[in-house]
Amino acid sequence: MNKIYVVGIGPGDYEQMTGRAIKALKESDAIIGYTVYVNLVKEYFPEKEFLTTPMKKEVDRCILAFEEAEKGRTVSMICSGDAGVYGMAGLMYEIGEKYPQTELEIIPGVTAATGGAAVLGAPLIHDFCLISLSDLLTPWEKIEKRILAAAQADFVVCIYNPSSKKRHDYLKKACDLLLKYKDKDTVCGLVSNIGREGEESRVMTLGELKDTQVDMFTTVFVGNSQTKNIGGKMVTPRGYQYE
Amino acid sequence: MNKIYVVGIGPGDYEQMTGRAIKALKESDAIIGYTVYVNLVKEYFPEKEFLTTPMKKEVDRCILAFEEAEKGRTVSMICSGDAGVYGMAGLMYEIGEKYPQTELEIIPGVTAATGGAAVLGAPLIHDFCLISLSDLLTPWEKIEKRILAAAQADFVVCIYNPSSKKRHDYLKKACDLLLKYKDKDTVCGLVSNIGREGEESRVMTLGELKDTQVDMFTTVFVGNSQTKNIGGKMVTPRGYQYE
Repeated sequence: MNKIYVVGIGPGDYEQMTGRAIKALKESDAIIGYTVYVNLVKEYFPEKEFLTTPMKKEVDRCILAFEEAEKGRTVSMICSGDAGVYGMAGLMYEIGEKYPQTELEIIPGVTAATGGAAVLGAPLIHDFCLISLSDLLTPWEKIEKRILAAAQADFVVCIYNPSSKKRHDYLKKACDLLLKYKDKDTVCGLVSNIGREGEESRVMTLGELKDTQVDMFTTVFVGNSQTKNIGGKMVTPRGYQYE
Repeated sequence: MNKIYVVGIGPGDYEQMTGRAIKALKESDAIIGYTVYVNLVKEYFPEKEFLTTPMKKEVDRCILAFEEAEKGRTVSMICSGDAGVYGMAGLMYEIGEKYPQTELEIIPGVTAATGGAAVLGAPLIHDFCLISLSDLLTPWEKIEKRILAAAQADFVVCIYNPSSKKRHDYLKKACDLLLKYKDKDTVCGLVSNIGREGEESRVMTLGELKDTQVDMFTTVFVGNSQTKNIGGKMVTPRGYQYE
């Protein structure tokens, strides 16, 4: 059997990778990924061959990985964060149906939800939803339905892909939907460039978030009705009693 | 300032810890945690002092950490998975209000959702909810509302704490609620003892899951309407077009 590791490299910093991820990259003959993520790890594995494809070429990137593996090489496909959260692990299994001689091993990593939560404090201590605002591959009506359901059932909501050049007003649209069921004083947080140079975070209210511009490197957190601002940290209680 | 690291050690295996987590434990004078988790890492840090408190003594465990830190010692509070997902990070901030001289640093880890997803294939590639079935600290009515909302909006659902001695029929109750909006053929998966000795996983339908007994070391995954079983792996498509 040929082997491809599908590796979540975490939020960016080498120290945020797991030992298992590092071991897979060390065992690989070729490391494949989107240009930006390859550049994050390249310096730590100077002896490896790196192959890249640009954004929106995900299908080509997967095929490239299987073709390299079919040559008998050990291959790692890398993704930022976790390869299984809006990552390439799914498409690799789908395309992999045509390559039955190649086995996949998915190696989990720290995704932006948990990496960003650690920067903000502890927003994800209770039930939460992850929702991507990107409507490139998902109809907006479906995204809207999920936002409303999450708000109505008082979930903490973590928003991926809150904005892009073409979708500059999507976070505002999402906030308007959340405000149908969540109070404008609901504690929210933003983290940009998690674990990388230029990391920034802010805690604010949902009312303020609505009028805040964010970029595509930002992850957004919207609290539940119990979430508190404790000394500038965003904290969702689990419910433990203490005096 | 005194310092406490609140560290997610991942699903259990030493290799699943991040470099940052290992560095924090190495820097610590004392490592505090629930007995079971302490036993998972103890052998790798033989020179450290380990302090434990049993389950349900979470408040005492946090106070112990702050008291050790007040002696000027560097302390790590460890949690399995990620400290910010149903973990101790929240309570540490809440109790920390009484210890303003002590700073917290949260170090994220691989949580059971992403660790288990990697074992099953790629179930979490699209929007998903995490829901705990434990009603020790949360009224069952709230849990029920969240399960129904998640099912109605076609989220993938990842279930933590699906069962315990006192709650042996809770997964069945949750499946009955999910079945109000999800098809009985929805692809589901179970993983037990993620990343530890005795790891086991199974892919099945929601109809089958309903009549399956699980233990408290199991994490449950319920697909969305698009989730597929590809050669025994549970895979949720993101929506990429490929031939």
